[in-house]
Amino acid sequence: MALDEFQLIQRFFKERCAAYSTNVCLGIGDDCALVNVPDGFCQALSMDTLVSGVHFPETTLPQDIAYKSLAVNLSDLAAMGASPAWFSLSLTLPAIDEDWLTAFSEGLFELANEVSVPLIGGDMTKGSLSITVQIAGHVKECVAMKRSTAKVGDDIYVSGTLGDAAAGLRVHAHTDLTEEFAPLIRRLNRPTPRNALGGRLAGVASSCIDVSDGLMADLTHICVSSQLGADLHVASLPVSQSLQNLLHRFSMNEREKLKLLLGGDDYELCFTAPEAVESMVKTVADQAGVPVTKIGKMKVGDTVDWVGLDSDVLSLTQCGFKHF
Amino acid sequence: MALDEFQLIQRFFKERCAAYSTNVCLGIGDDCALVNVPDGFCQALSMDTLVSGVHFPETTLPQDIAYKSLAVNLSDLAAMGASPAWFSLSLTLPAIDEDWLTAFSEGLFELANEVSVPLIGGDMTKGSLSITVQIAGHVKECVAMKRSTAKVGDDIYVSGTLGDAAAGLRVHAHTDLTEEFAPLIRRLNRPTPRNALGGRLAGVASSCIDVSDGLMADLTHICVSSQLGADLHVASLPVSQSLQNLLHRFSMNEREKLKLLLGGDDYELCFTAPEAVESMVKTVADQAGVPVTKIGKMKVGDTVDWVGLDSDVLSLTQCGFKHF
Repeated sequence: MALDEFQLIQRFFKERCAAYSTNVCLGIGDDCALVNVPDGFCQALSMDTLVSGVHFPETTLPQDIAYKSLAVNLSDLAAMGASPAWFSLSLTLPAIDEDWLTAFSEGLFELANEVSVPLIGGDMTKGSLSITVQIAGHVKECVAMKRSTAKVGDDIYVSGTLGDAAAGLRVHAHTDLTEEFAPLIRRLNRPTPRNALGGRLAGVASSCIDVSDGLMADLTHICVSSQLGADLHVASLPVSQSLQNLLHRFSMNEREKLKLLLGGDDYELCFTAPEAVESMVKTVADQAGVPVTKIGKMKVGDTVDWVGLDSDVLSLTQCGFKHF
Repeated sequence: MALDEFQLIQRFFKERCAAYSTNVCLGIGDDCALVNVPDGFCQALSMDTLVSGVHFPETTLPQDIAYKSLAVNLSDLAAMGASPAWFSLSLTLPAIDEDWLTAFSEGLFELANEVSVPLIGGDMTKGSLSITVQIAGHVKECVAMKRSTAKVGDDIYVSGTLGDAAAGLRVHAHTDLTEEFAPLIRRLNRPTPRNALGGRLAGVASSCIDVSDGLMADLTHICVSSQLGADLHVASLPVSQSLQNLLHRFSMNEREKLKLLLGGDDYELCFTAPEAVESMVKTVADQAGVPVTKIGKMKVGDTVDWVGLDSDVLSLTQCGFKHF
């Protein structure tokens, strides 16, 4: 006999969830979960929905869909400098497929248990495939990294490399390329949330955002919130070896390259910090094991301007992902 | 020019949200919201998704969809005895329709502002229409009403009346009936979360659940969690005048009547309390302005048994809503 909704939740989610932390008084299985926030801390909250065919290709494996759904939410906590505390999951499925659910829950708890964030509840409904995660973390309010607090003259940094996921999206459907460019496809399907870095940047960086919509779009959010402009050095944008290989293999020009670099879905941190703390930024990046690159500077104004960009590429100032 | 995602959020959600409470340090517009939980309180959390055509008919008005999405989540807080604190919203839409969004946000904030619960964040994505709400409330852990703490001999109560929403679903599409049975359709589209009652029952009731899947299914959750059985008095189930009228109009028999009463989507509270506190239950129900009816008794065992049910109706023990 097919499992009902409650048995499915028990089997694929409750049983696979690692032990709850001391801050979770009551987990999956009642009308509400009950949690505590440690004294002196604020709760940071973010909610992201991933829709099949919009946020991931329809051919994406269930374990990767699950991994990405949690990773993009963890990334929002990283951008705030908050430590992950718990998450809830609403899963909408066209039908029950136990193999699919087995794979999905494996991908989910691979990441959840790695970062020790328990699943405390959620919902399971019938409909077109989509996944909503609400995540919560803890952070001291005085060091939470907002978008609105960048200052004139602050350096702009980005973690890791840009454009890998956008490149992965271009090659994932070409079976003759998937092996050669597996690292790019992995960056698309399994983004690495930068929580170790974000937690250490709290109190050091003056503002932070995670790069989901694309560097230009997301840096613009910092600029608008902080009522400032920015200069971006195009030659400084960090590019992975895998992406270099792709650019070379397909003889892509500067315009095509920049389009990938600004394509979004990176889940790197873009943050600002005063010049005076540059050595501290390098230290915490080393501690977190994540490279960071200085890519520009905040300035008076209301535009993001490129430095070192050929005029024929300059029209490509707005790139990134828009839903509507 | 069409509004982009960020302008839509600003216009339809951020601007219409009443002032944040003192517990919200940072609301809509950053990577995360930041909230506090008052000293001595736990945070109660629930997440529910409503899918078009599953949780509401596709013809439902956007203002009613919004109202119901928030109401069913408030109902989970009521069942826990928690006071509403904030909610986040993930809205998945097939396309941007500003008239639809205007109506949706009116329905949403009609209820949100009535119960003073601020929207702190969320997501807006493209896809089949579905609405996910994560809600949080505050409750002292020692009085939070769990499902697992009913005791043998406790009386079983239900608030309000049962079956109205299930009846509303039967008549909503028949234009010749919609005026006559408007109160039933309203109960389907705009359920009344019982927060005033739930908050007062905390510390009085021994267990509580909200009736979403149907009385039988939901009381079974209390029984399973509390490792007990229950006797249910069929003649005691509270029926509204509107539902009486419908039963009479269509000459429905006992079986058809019971099917409606157990049909779910009621968002009434089903709770247990020791006999000794019966007068206190009546007092808090009066204070909340919500009638409550004693409908049965918890007992040793692992079944929910009907008292006073004709044998030819008895096979109808399992009724309610199952997703899969």
